[in-house]
This record gives sequence, structure tokens and C-alpha cells, in this order.
Amino acid sequence: MLAGRHRHTLSGVTDVPPELADLRSSIDNIDAALIHLLAERFKATQRVGILKAGWRLPPADPAREETQITRLRALAKEAGLDPIFAEKFLSFVVAEVIRHHEAIAETAEVRAAPWLRSESPPT
Amino acid sequence: MLAGRHRHTLSGVTDVPPELADLRSSIDNIDAALIHLLAERFKATQRVGILKAGWRLPPADPAREETQITRLRALAKEAGLDPIFAEKFLSFVVAEVIRHHEAIAETAEVRAAPWLRSESPPT
Repeated sequence: MLAGRHRHTLSGVTDVPPELADLRSSIDNIDAALIHLLAERFKATQRVGILKAGWRLPPADPAREETQITRLRALAKEAGLDPIFAEKFLSFVVAEVIRHHEAIAETAEVRAAPWLRSESPPT
Repeated sequence: MLAGRHRHTLSGVTDVPPELADLRSSIDNIDAALIHLLAERFKATQRVGILKAGWRLPPADPAREETQITRLRALAKEAGLDPIFAEKFLSFVVAEVIRHHEAIAETAEVRAAPWLRSESPPT
């Protein structure tokens, strides 16, 4: 029979001490929650991107980002998370959001002016 | 009286169209949840770091990371999140975790062999 040290975690990892396997199982659960929340966040920012493209607003919004950084740093401190990491995390996510917004804006422009796709504008 | 276009969001942003303000308010809620989950994730990995330092296991674990990447990419696909982004996100978080683990391992080493802090080993 296998000893206590040999068990399967959610991820199928074997030969791991049980204390480590238990923590990894919690980390796996937290990661699943993070992925689903990130998916939901990008759904919301995708809608923002479509609205912004419709109103011809720029993809980035430095004033909004400043407010978000201040708020998330404060939340991080309260939650016991390094505020510098919280800020880096927001920048990481926002960089991806801006890439999406730029893509949406480009598509909207091409739709409004299809010649942008061809080599020269209509004469 | 202020028109519908002038409202305050959770972050105190004004002069934003209501559709955008509503989406931003949801994004702010999701971000608060993300920050709290990340705080909880780092609590778990901090415990992992202490266990690993005690057993003198290396901070990084490429086999475990490979399993995590495969799982998170699959979860991301199901949730409608770009799997490439999910992978980048995990790498971003794991890089921070490894920095923490290295710091814990160093502290443990210094505690076990305090001369590491001074210029030369004991003679």
C-alpha cells in the first residue's frame, strides 16, 4: 500500500509530501477562480472597448488607471498583499486590455472605412 | 440637476457615459475579488516556500508548472479567456512566487548558517 507521502492532487502530481499536496490543491482552486474572474473581467472590458470605439474614445485612459492603482494598492494592503505587486498586476492586465481595445478600434475603423484594408483610399 | 451622463462610479470618476460607468463599476468589483484571491494565493505559496526551505527543495518546480499551465489553459478555453493570456498570467504570478521562495530559502540558510551574512565562513 502506498504511504501517506504518495497521493494524487487535483493536478495529478504524485510523490509530494501531504502538506505540500494540500496547499497545492488550494492553490489550484484559487487559480481556477482567478481564471474565471479574469474571463469575466475581459468580457466587461471587451464591452468597454466596443463602446469606446463607437464614441471614438482612446483605448487607454491614464486618469482612470491612476484611480484604479490607488484603490487596488489600498485594497492590497488591507488584504496583506504587496501593493507593488498589486500595481504590477493591474499594469499587466491593463496592457492586455489596451491591446484588445486597439484591435476593436481598428476593426471599427476598417468597418467605417473599408479602404483602410486595401492599399489606397478610394479616389 | 445633473444629467444622466454625469454620475459617480465607485472610483469617483465623473463625466463618464452611464453605460461605461456601469461596466467600470463591475470591473472595480472584479478587481477587488482578484486582489483578495491573489492575497490568499500568496499566503498559500508562502507556506509552500517555508515547507520547501525546510526540506531544502528548490524554489521552482518545472514539472508542477507544466501541469498547472495545461490545466489553466483548458480552464481558460472553457471560460472564454485567451489560453495564451492565461499562461502569461500564471508565469507572471509564478515569477513573483519564486522570488518569495528564494527570499525564504535565503533567510532559512542564514538562520542555519549565520556566517553567510558575514564576509567569511567560521574558521
